[in-house]
Amino acid sequence: MTAQEVAALVGGEVAGESGVRILRPAKIEEAVAGDLTFLANPRYEKFVATTTASAILVSRAFDTRQHSRAGLTFILVADPYVSFLQILKHLSPQTDPFVPGVDETAVVADSAILGPGVALGAHVVVGRDVRIGTNTKVGPGCVLGDGAALGEDCQIFPNVTIYHGCRLGNRVIVHAGTVIGSDGFGFAPKPDGTYEKIPQMGIVLLEDDVELGANCTIDRATMGQTVIKRGAKLDNLVHVAHNVTVGEHTVIAAQTGISGSTKVGNNVMLGGQVGIVGHIEIADRSVIMAQSGISKSTQAGKSYFGTPAKEHMRALKIEAIIRSLPELAKDVEELKKLLEALKNDRAAR
Amino acid sequence: MTAQEVAALVGGEVAGESGVRILRPAKIEEAVAGDLTFLANPRYEKFVATTTASAILVSRAFDTRQHSRAGLTFILVADPYVSFLQILKHLSPQTDPFVPGVDETAVVADSAILGPGVALGAHVVVGRDVRIGTNTKVGPGCVLGDGAALGEDCQIFPNVTIYHGCRLGNRVIVHAGTVIGSDGFGFAPKPDGTYEKIPQMGIVLLEDDVELGANCTIDRATMGQTVIKRGAKLDNLVHVAHNVTVGEHTVIAAQTGISGSTKVGNNVMLGGQVGIVGHIEIADRSVIMAQSGISKSTQAGKSYFGTPAKEHMRALKIEAIIRSLPELAKDVEELKKLLEALKNDRAAR
Amino acid sequence: MTAQEVAALVGGEVAGESGVRILRPAKIEEAVAGDLTFLANPRYEKFVATTTASAILVSRAFDTRQHSRAGLTFILVADPYVSFLQILKHLSPQTDPFVPGVDETAVVADSAILGPGVALGAHVVVGRDVRIGTNTKVGPGCVLGDGAALGEDCQIFPNVTIYHGCRLGNRVIVHAGTVIGSDGFGFAPKPDGTYEKIPQMGIVLLEDDVELGANCTIDRATMGQTVIKRGAKLDNLVHVAHNVTVGEHTVIAAQTGISGSTKVGNNVMLGGQVGIVGHIEIADRSVIMAQSGISKSTQAGKSYFGTPAKEHMRALKIEAIIRSLPELAKDVEELKKLLEALKNDRAAR
Repeated sequence: MTAQEVAALVGGEVAGESGVRILRPAKIEEAVAGDLTFLANPRYEKFVATTTASAILVSRAFDTRQHSRAGLTFILVADPYVSFLQILKHLSPQTDPFVPGVDETAVVADSAILGPGVALGAHVVVGRDVRIGTNTKVGPGCVLGDGAALGEDCQIFPNVTIYHGCRLGNRVIVHAGTVIGSDGFGFAPKPDGTYEKIPQMGIVLLEDDVELGANCTIDRATMGQTVIKRGAKLDNLVHVAHNVTVGEHTVIAAQTGISGSTKVGNNVMLGGQVGIVGHIEIADRSVIMAQSGISKSTQAGKSYFGTPAKEHMRALKIEAIIRSLPELAKDVEELKKLLEALKNDRAAR
Repeated sequence: MTAQEVAALVGGEVAGESGVRILRPAKIEEAVAGDLTFLANPRYEKFVATTTASAILVSRAFDTRQHSRAGLTFILVADPYVSFLQILKHLSPQTDPFVPGVDETAVVADSAILGPGVALGAHVVVGRDVRIGTNTKVGPGCVLGDGAALGEDCQIFPNVTIYHGCRLGNRVIVHAGTVIGSDGFGFAPKPDGTYEKIPQMGIVLLEDDVELGANCTIDRATMGQTVIKRGAKLDNLVHVAHNVTVGEHTVIAAQTGISGSTKVGNNVMLGGQVGIVGHIEIADRSVIMAQSGISKSTQAGKSYFGTPAKEHMRALKIEAIIRSLPELAKDVEELKKLLEALKNDRAAR
Repeated sequence: MTAQEVAALVGGEVAGESGVRILRPAKIEEAVAGDLTFLANPRYEKFVATTTASAILVSRAFDTRQHSRAGLTFILVADPYVSFLQILKHLSPQTDPFVPGVDETAVVADSAILGPGVALGAHVVVGRDVRIGTNTKVGPGCVLGDGAALGEDCQIFPNVTIYHGCRLGNRVIVHAGTVIGSDGFGFAPKPDGTYEKIPQMGIVLLEDDVELGANCTIDRATMGQTVIKRGAKLDNLVHVAHNVTVGEHTVIAAQTGISGSTKVGNNVMLGGQVGIVGHIEIADRSVIMAQSGISKSTQAGKSYFGTPAKEHMRALKIEAIIRSLPELAKDVEELKKLLEALKNDRAAR
């Protein structure tokens, strides 16, 4: 593949030797002759002067003339990282971890309906009335409960459990060990201090293009649906309680938990290990920093940090004072002494 | 089903049209004609005036005369929510997610003893000397280690792993992906900086009526037992370390972790993402707010919040001051200036 | 087994009756006649005077003459706890939870290579080109993806998923439900607010003597490797993101999460529920207290606590002031009033 061919693939322009051959993709700090690399983060610009890579993807705003030298060809594109990823996929096609066809050890209910191209790995269990769309692939050990419905082109990695009645859209990716549709945590206290289980009769709905990480837990609704809307991406070990809604294109980092009936808006970003109480609204485009505890609804587009969370800039201001609290406390002690001295002094006159 | 029949089912009294027909259960803000709804939380009382529901479950203390109007029938009961749940189960019987009988793909050791009515899903593995009580149901993909013992009427959802020797009482519910009896985290440091694994020789005991959420981890004891006592309810992704005891009817929200040898009392409530150090006691009826970090034993019936945790009211008081620390710090700065001015002034006289 | 035989087994010396018979191991507060116990933690020294144990392992520095009495035999060793564990293993050999041989329900690709003594439980799935070393045991329901490689003497507990291409060294232990090699959480934002999945083309490498708890998630690298170095021990529900390195003999308590590309050094100790941001370095021998949030690189051998974390002693100092903030705030209020009075007083003269 030549620099010119790379440029054609990503809609870029060559500045340098258009015929130079590209053999491998590599990070800029590791790239050598024959490699294609990229510059996205300005912190890495220093490597442009020293890299022995054959070609480098840069933004159209990048001043190639200033860095021009023999042996280094620039390919100018709109977004170097995204273009690099495109080349990456082209140069190193990923091996498909799913085996085609229905393994003979899979147990499939007679009433289940499988679309064309469906792959079921070894020991998969498909319950009654399950529907699986065209080209969806289900890894070994997965269990799809009665009445579950999966769209087209989904990838369900091994040992995933999808409870009865839950529904997945198209192109949904679910990583290994994740549980979809377990009972919501609902118990009514009884006068004797024991609990009565509240039946959890709803389902979970994952819309198109949702991706869930490994060992997540998404609880079914008490009534109605727990919904993760299209394009939302969840990292590993995320907990979503009953009747929660997660909005479109919202991203949730690992180990975060969302309590029952809370509505998370669109394009929200939740950091890792965040906890959110039930029955509130996280407004569109809110950003919640890692480990925060959110007990109140948020405002659209604002950032929050802390437990309980504060608006982010305010939280930083408070944190700066917390860090110097020992000095502040000493100041107050000294003020008290000084004032005492002044009072005594005045009294003595 | 008529309002009168509903009342009979839950031991309530009708105020209004006893013959009105009930077709569906619904939330008060969504209910329409033909629906039965309920009023439990006073915040929803406003909907009583506007709902088009046919009947509504209310507490016996509720003033039905004040809200009386044509087309709305009241059913007075002791606990409207609990009664609503009873009707819910009656009107919409849940489909049983377990398939009866022993699937032919289940692998069952010859020495295992299965009670009558036991259901084993596809690809279940039952080890040597395992005992499973009457009517207990085990979902697909579960693994029961050698010598494990399950009581009667348990429901074990798919892909659960129960290690060798662990014991479950009656009516225990375990959601998908949960692991019971993995090794406790015990390693003895050696002089060279490496670790020697401490054998984990105990078991896990789950007493009657315990429910565990999805993807929990309950470690076996080093010696003796890790115990979850009867009626305790754990949400998803909860971690219980070796030799911990969780008391009767204690509820633990998602992603909480309890370190080794700690004793959690009866009727305790632990919020989500709480962390508790090892070797302490959480007294009966303690309430620990979400995300708190508990490093000391608690007092019975008291509430705690924060990391490290404080008594709840004290924590709220402290938090109020933390929120206004920037203003407090400014006050101190001004006091310093004022006092300086006073001193200079005095010196100048 | 006699006290003399115990001493011989652990390289210790007997002070007392060398012929006394040892029947069981027990904790010092529970030990009775016939039991061997140990004293490691000084807090338990009081039990030495009252225990009816037949023999007790103590440190060579322990003053046996002071505590000498009829019926109690001392065995002096370098490390009483480690010696006790050795005896424990000797007296109560653990039952092997793995069934020898390859179960007939295991599905093994033709191209897989199994060493001698390999055990595969029921319903195990072994992908194409997988290599498994001598005497490695894989529990029921595990899935080993194409090209995965396991060393010798590993123990993989049930329902573990190891994705394609991931590699384990020798004597690696992985507890049930853990997922190794799921996709890193990488998505490139697009101008329209949606996300493009970044292909995750690397692998996970677990070196020799690593132990992972139950339901952990270790993500594969975007390019290259996510590495957990030899001797590292992870508790349950730990999350390790793409391209992270965990150093040798580092221990990580339950529910901790490490974000992408962070390097954790050797002999580090991470408490439970710790969160670490991406792209930083946790220096060798750092100690991070439970629930801390680490946003900056740490210094070797230092302890940290809090979110955001502070050096441990500083954090304790700050925490002490936080606990008395209501009193500090009252002091400031009083100072303001006093100063106001002084000013008025001065103006009045």
